[in-house]
This record gives sequence, C-alpha cells and structure tokens, in this order.
Amino acid sequence: MNTKTIAFIGLGAMGSHSARRLAAAGYRVQGYDLRREALQALADAGGETASSVAEAMAGADYALLFVVNGKQAEQIIFGTGGIAESARPGLTIMSCVTMPPDQAASLGQRCRENGWRFIDSPVSGGTAGASRGTLTVMAAGDPAAIDDCRPIYATIAERLMVVGADPGQGAMVKTINQLLCGVHLAAAGEAMAMAKRAGLDLQAVWDVVNYSAAGSWMMNDRGPRMVAQNFDAPTSAVDIFVKDLGIVVDVARALRFPAPLAATALQSFLGSSGAGNSQRDDAAVMLYYAGFAPAEPDA
Amino acid sequence: MNTKTIAFIGLGAMGSHSARRLAAAGYRVQGYDLRREALQALADAGGETASSVAEAMAGADYALLFVVNGKQAEQIIFGTGGIAESARPGLTIMSCVTMPPDQAASLGQRCRENGWRFIDSPVSGGTAGASRGTLTVMAAGDPAAIDDCRPIYATIAERLMVVGADPGQGAMVKTINQLLCGVHLAAAGEAMAMAKRAGLDLQAVWDVVNYSAAGSWMMNDRGPRMVAQNFDAPTSAVDIFVKDLGIVVDVARALRFPAPLAATALQSFLGSSGAGNSQRDDAAVMLYYAGFAPAEPDA
Repeated sequence: MNTKTIAFIGLGAMGSHSARRLAAAGYRVQGYDLRREALQALADAGGETASSVAEAMAGADYALLFVVNGKQAEQIIFGTGGIAESARPGLTIMSCVTMPPDQAASLGQRCRENGWRFIDSPVSGGTAGASRGTLTVMAAGDPAAIDDCRPIYATIAERLMVVGADPGQGAMVKTINQLLCGVHLAAAGEAMAMAKRAGLDLQAVWDVVNYSAAGSWMMNDRGPRMVAQNFDAPTSAVDIFVKDLGIVVDVARALRFPAPLAATALQSFLGSSGAGNSQRDDAAVMLYYAGFAPAEPDA
Repeated sequence: MNTKTIAFIGLGAMGSHSARRLAAAGYRVQGYDLRREALQALADAGGETASSVAEAMAGADYALLFVVNGKQAEQIIFGTGGIAESARPGLTIMSCVTMPPDQAASLGQRCRENGWRFIDSPVSGGTAGASRGTLTVMAAGDPAAIDDCRPIYATIAERLMVVGADPGQGAMVKTINQLLCGVHLAAAGEAMAMAKRAGLDLQAVWDVVNYSAAGSWMMNDRGPRMVAQNFDAPTSAVDIFVKDLGIVVDVARALRFPAPLAATALQSFLGSSGAGNSQRDDAAVMLYYAGFAPAEPDA
C-alpha cells in the first residue's frame, strides 16, 4: 500500500485517467480541477476531490500537474491561491504539461529558488495511452527527484525516458516528438487525399502502406478514420495540432533552425481548421487536401 | 517441386535475392542482367544464367522484371532483342519495377494488344525485405493472371495486396507509398537535426520517438544511422529518393493535386544530394538540415 499523498491538478481527458490509476494503486490522490464535472467524475470513480488548490495540497508530498498549457501551469503554481502559497519545503512538482521549452526552464528555475523540485515531464500517447497506462514520459530534472518519482510515473506510464537534468529539455524532446507526429499526420492526409484524387481504393492503400516501409504510428491510428471519412468522434481535435505545431515552429524560429516540413504541416492544419474543422478529429487534416480531390483529373 | 520456368530480368540488389529465393523453391529460373558481375553472382549461388533476353525466355512461362525504372522495362520488353521477339502467346509478364503510373498503364496496354498478360506489381521493403522474402507487393492487373502468379509472389514476398485490375494502379499505390516514405525520412532528418541544434542527446530522442506516437518505419530503420552520423554504408542512396519523390511530384502535378509535403521533402533530398551526398545512405538527408545545426543558437 502506498502511503504517499499526491495533489493531482488537472482532470481533463488524460489527467482523469492517470488520477484514477494512481488512486487504484493505493496512493492518496487529492484531485482538483476548475471544472465541476471533472471533479464529479473523479468522485464517482472513488477518488478524493478538493475544492481548491490549497485543499488538494494538504499534506501532499507531490504535486502532479496535468493542465493543458504552460500558462495554466504557471497560474496553478504561482497564481493567487496557487501551490506556492501552501507548498511545504522539499515539495516535488511533477509537470506532465506540454509547453514551450523556455517556459518549462523558467518554471523549473523559479521552483528551485523556492526550494521545490520541478520535473519537466511531458507525455506522449494520448487519451488511449492514459487510459491503459501506456504513456511515454520524457523527463528532465534533478536525477534524484526523478528516481524518487519512478513508482508514480510507472503507475501512469509504460516508459519513463530520462532525457536530461535540466527542466526545458523534456519540453524540447516533446517539441521534437510533436514535429514528427504533426508531419506524419499531415502526410497521411496528403497521401490519402492524393489516392482519392487518383481514384484508388483507400482501404487497399491503407492496407499496403500500413504494413510497408511507409508505415507510421499516425497512419496506423488515424488512417482508418480517413478511409471512412469519419471525423465527428474526435479523440484529439485539429486545433490541438495547430497549437502543438505552433510551438514547434516558434521553437525552431527561436533556435534559428528552419523546419520546412513542420511549417508546411502547420499550414495544412490551419487550412483544415479555418475551413470549419477546428474541433473535428485531427484526421480531418485530410480535408485541407480533399478540397483538391473530389473532381476527376483533366484528361 | 515447381516445374514452371521463369525468365528473371534484372539481378540488382533486390532482384538477385528474389531470383535466388525462386530457384531455392524449385522454379527453373533463367536469370539475365546486362552486368556480368550480377550474372556471376547468380551462377555462384547455383542459379542458371542467360547471355541474352532471348536465352532467358527459352521455354519461359513467366517473365519477371526487376529492373530499375520504366525506361529499362520498356526496352527489355519492346527493344531490340527484347521479350517481344521471343515471347510465346499467353506469356505473363510480372513487373516489379517502380515507374510512373501512366508508363505502367501504357506498357500494360501494349502487352495486352500482343496477347500477353502484364501485372503491374511494384514492391516495398528494400534489399532487406528482398533478402528475407518479406516484401510487400502491390499488384494491379487481370485477376486471373494475378491468382495464377500467387505462388511466385508468395516466394519472394510476405504480402500480396491486389490494388486494382488495371496496370498503372499498382504504380499509383507505389507512388503514394513513396510519398509517405520520403516525407517520413525527411521528417526524421528535420527532427534529428533540430534536436542536435537544441543540444539534445540524439540517442535519447530516438528512444522516445521510436516508441511513441511519433514513430515511423523510416525513423525506426534510418534513425540509428542519424544518431551515429553514419552515412557511408548505404542500403539505399539519397538519389533514389530524388528519383522516387520526383515521380511523386510529377504524378501530383499531372493530377492537378498539390502535394506540399512531398514537394518540400524533395527539396531536402535535392539539397543533400547537391551538397555532395548523392550516393551516400539516404539517412544523409539529415545533412541538408545539419548545415543549420552545428552552431550554438543566438542568446
């Protein structure tokens, strides 16, 4: 039986799954979210809920953040009523938040100045991975702090990859990860739309590319929705990649590194979003290209 | 014991493996290649060699083409001393050649007019797949002819995908396949070079992305060579993707279909090739980006 207490902040699609897995493993999980329905869902699943960050922090050894961006993470830690007001010395903050590397580095620095340990540990694997506990964590921070948190990460994730000792390096690896995810997904849309334009059977195309050297995790996962043209049961929305590839090109620009494929993929997601698909499943990036696909080619 | 006779034309890196697999399975394989050393290698492996296309065609039930492009395929069939001069009626030509779809359609049409069956059946899987018999075949042609050839395809490939009844459709699926392969490989180069620019440990980055939603067959296979910066033992050269992505953008243009990711990836391969890496391993597409990577970013 685990006797550690975890303040779990952010009970969205992914966080709620991870919070429940920790509670089921015996941790004392004190969940908090601004949205009442998210708190209720955790309560219904047998978790303990808090009505404020301060209440979630009562007796907490760890604060685990699963909010949607760096701005929210900063507010939860340093804003009015935030973690900073109720944290005990030596607190470990595990941030599973996707944010720009410089923001993660800055938060890590401010936490260190306050005597807390900050682990920059974004995850990959989506809601399905959170549900099944098969996330990949890319962690950067004090090695002793990461070692101390291994049992917690092992409860929510399948793989813990230590990518550096400095907060910001986890976010940078996540940025590289999202470059690949975004380009692969847009490429799947480009390939499927071109196949449609050429009059091919999309199911047959998927059957070929999914098992050949053309395969990708993204094509495997999103391809069937492209074949079925089913974009209305989103597991992740088009605008999530508008955000994530936006971070990629911003980081690349700051590094003075040209990333032409990432920049091009972002245009595809922007085009799909701007055409009215912002909240549809991200496989709808194909619709950016599909605008060119329905008619027969010129003779 | 198979008693069928196969005229096997084209004994390059991939063809030689497939020819040997067919011979080992009991087929009478009569191999031909313009290059003397390719013939010698087949002879050393116990295969039968021919000194001309006509000699390879003697008594042949099938002609299997594994030459490097459509122009060679056309010459082998319809050029001086070609298959057309010695083919018996009802001959089945199995083309495993990667070529533009309109060229495959045209060859299929001319063969049909001569009373031969032509299967447009390019493959994916590379030299390694040919060696292990794990190729994927994407076949288009007369269904009865394809069924008749199933045992032959099963000897050289793991998967036979029938993608249509008309020659040209196999080439079109292969074109879509190469769009994905080329974009994924260039994206791997972009991601790894950006990671290098950001000062990350490339092995750790590969460990993360290879097992996450960012994974691709290409990153899995070529990524280790990017981590090691080892481009001098090519399994496939940079210029092969200059050719293959060249076909992709030409086909897209003819379809009046914009393929911005494929067009962008082609520029990356062109940049790497033009900088002196044309014959190096195709993972050297990373060197296009690496030109921007070595220096430290501005503060």
